[in-house]
Amino acid sequence: MDNYSKYMRTCFKLARKAEGKTSPNPLVGCVVLDKFGNKISEGYHRKYGENHAERDALLKLDKDVAIGGTLIVNLEPCNHHGKTPPCSDLIIERGLKRVVISSIDTNPVASGGIKKLENAGIEVIQGVLEEEGNELNEVFFTNINKKRPFIVLKTATTIDGKISTKTGDSKWITSDRARKYARKLRTKYDAILTSSSTVLADNPEMKHKTKIIIDRYLKCDLSAQIFKNGKIYIFTEKTPSGVNEYPNIEFIYNNEITIDFILEELFKRKIMSVFVEAGGKLLGSFVKEGYVDKIYHFIAPKITNDNSAKSAFDGDTISLISQAKGFKLVDMKKLYPDVLLTYKPL
Amino acid sequence: MDNYSKYMRTCFKLARKAEGKTSPNPLVGCVVLDKFGNKISEGYHRKYGENHAERDALLKLDKDVAIGGTLIVNLEPCNHHGKTPPCSDLIIERGLKRVVISSIDTNPVASGGIKKLENAGIEVIQGVLEEEGNELNEVFFTNINKKRPFIVLKTATTIDGKISTKTGDSKWITSDRARKYARKLRTKYDAILTSSSTVLADNPEMKHKTKIIIDRYLKCDLSAQIFKNGKIYIFTEKTPSGVNEYPNIEFIYNNEITIDFILEELFKRKIMSVFVEAGGKLLGSFVKEGYVDKIYHFIAPKITNDNSAKSAFDGDTISLISQAKGFKLVDMKKLYPDVLLTYKPL
Repeated sequence: MDNYSKYMRTCFKLARKAEGKTSPNPLVGCVVLDKFGNKISEGYHRKYGENHAERDALLKLDKDVAIGGTLIVNLEPCNHHGKTPPCSDLIIERGLKRVVISSIDTNPVASGGIKKLENAGIEVIQGVLEEEGNELNEVFFTNINKKRPFIVLKTATTIDGKISTKTGDSKWITSDRARKYARKLRTKYDAILTSSSTVLADNPEMKHKTKIIIDRYLKCDLSAQIFKNGKIYIFTEKTPSGVNEYPNIEFIYNNEITIDFILEELFKRKIMSVFVEAGGKLLGSFVKEGYVDKIYHFIAPKITNDNSAKSAFDGDTISLISQAKGFKLVDMKKLYPDVLLTYKPL
Repeated sequence: MDNYSKYMRTCFKLARKAEGKTSPNPLVGCVVLDKFGNKISEGYHRKYGENHAERDALLKLDKDVAIGGTLIVNLEPCNHHGKTPPCSDLIIERGLKRVVISSIDTNPVASGGIKKLENAGIEVIQGVLEEEGNELNEVFFTNINKKRPFIVLKTATTIDGKISTKTGDSKWITSDRARKYARKLRTKYDAILTSSSTVLADNPEMKHKTKIIIDRYLKCDLSAQIFKNGKIYIFTEKTPSGVNEYPNIEFIYNNEITIDFILEELFKRKIMSVFVEAGGKLLGSFVKEGYVDKIYHFIAPKITNDNSAKSAFDGDTISLISQAKGFKLVDMKKLYPDVLLTYKPL
């Protein structure tokens, strides 16, 4: 078991190399040992549409060398014909005698791999570093289980929880180092989401391949920086007039733009994870409706000392502290001079 | 040098044993090595009025055993007749050949020890782990250099920086574990300071040997819990009527209760460090006036999501983030489920 943990960690590491590239597929890494227990191959799922990790690792080997060997993989091998044939079939073909798994694939389309392997006489060990395996594919499992994109809220505040002054100035709360780190975090997720207020107040560029802007009354000028790159989805309650001259912009119209509507439309478009960077109102509405899978909270060593400055989250009115929404701290990182605290729902 | 660092760390450890007990004196620990470099004694300043660390360590030894030896101490040995005779004299008498020091004593009354030792032919090495040594006696050095008590601000907030709901409910932001830890921190400092608003809103007990309450208009009922133990100083702008029946309470009156006035009065009374536990207004007034030596910020994994809930610091009105007061992070500690971030002034 100990030995497999070591290889499972290698699987996680391999899997993470493709972070941000496999959506809507999970992150998967694989290690193959020969019958003597020596590592003879490794592989990972590099990109949506390309080989699964098991296939990537096994196809590097001559047909017979894996006979009697062990395959370690962080997710239950698939059992369906998607872009590629089922991995479970290839594992059986190649004559492995044991498969070690971290997470079970709860996707009804792809699951059943373990059963097929066992029916073929292969020993299956499951649950190795399962918590870490589930964490690695938190986006994927949220998609499968909740049928919506994984929601990440990012905020950067002063010690007193403020994101900008009353007059809207927010440049800059955190240091260059923290902002750079936040930009790196963005790339892990399929899209970033922000509000017209943020676009109007800060005119940010927010480089990303996919950007979502909630602009109910179409207040944003389409010459703003944010529209200059990436695929853009604008959620609006106002029908855009005239012809859309911007091939990279899609308007998504509804009578009422609710978070439910947004998440449904994004999920339809296979946007599986959303990094929300916005003011207190938009972040607060996700908190209020309970659509939060992760919170990145950057804290700068500053005090506005101004109660009228704007808070990171707004939208509820509570009279008792016990009504506050609870989360759990999952990580703390020093990004000197700032700090990054990461939370998940309870 | 390396060797001395090790012993200097022992000095720090010994010194810390008396935390909260030596005020207005510094925290000092001492190690004595014989002429062969073997540790033969250690000591520390246990309590105000008792022997200094060097004396504590040397008096445990027979008169001749320290001849040719080395004395390691985290603060320059004193050169004055206070409650005890000068340590520098005792070191010379005992025939040590070398003294190793971390911090220089900037107290004009006690300094001059190094000079005296050198004049007696003793080699003095100074600056060993000096930063840590200065940190250990941050209270003492602030007292000497700024001629006022060391000011610690403590707050406990939600992720969104709130200390209570709009209606004043604050029970409880942080977990039992964090609150216990905060009570332990209190004991390190000479006194705690709070406002009548906190007493009226929460009726806290706040156990401490010395408590300071700012109650400008004498609104607090003296039967409130906080008055039941410890020595109490009430700062007020209203002359108390009638006879003070409470032997543990002293009223300190002034036309206008300013922070300057409070700090001056406390310093006169040899209250050398103050742990401020209060709402945003009182904490904010210390921030506004720049009287902050340390901030303990406990953060609970909760979001009020309510902009009208009360902030941890208030009192300024700023229009630009660049006007926010800057601090530096000096420590972060997981007190699961909460976090404690510690800051110092820049």
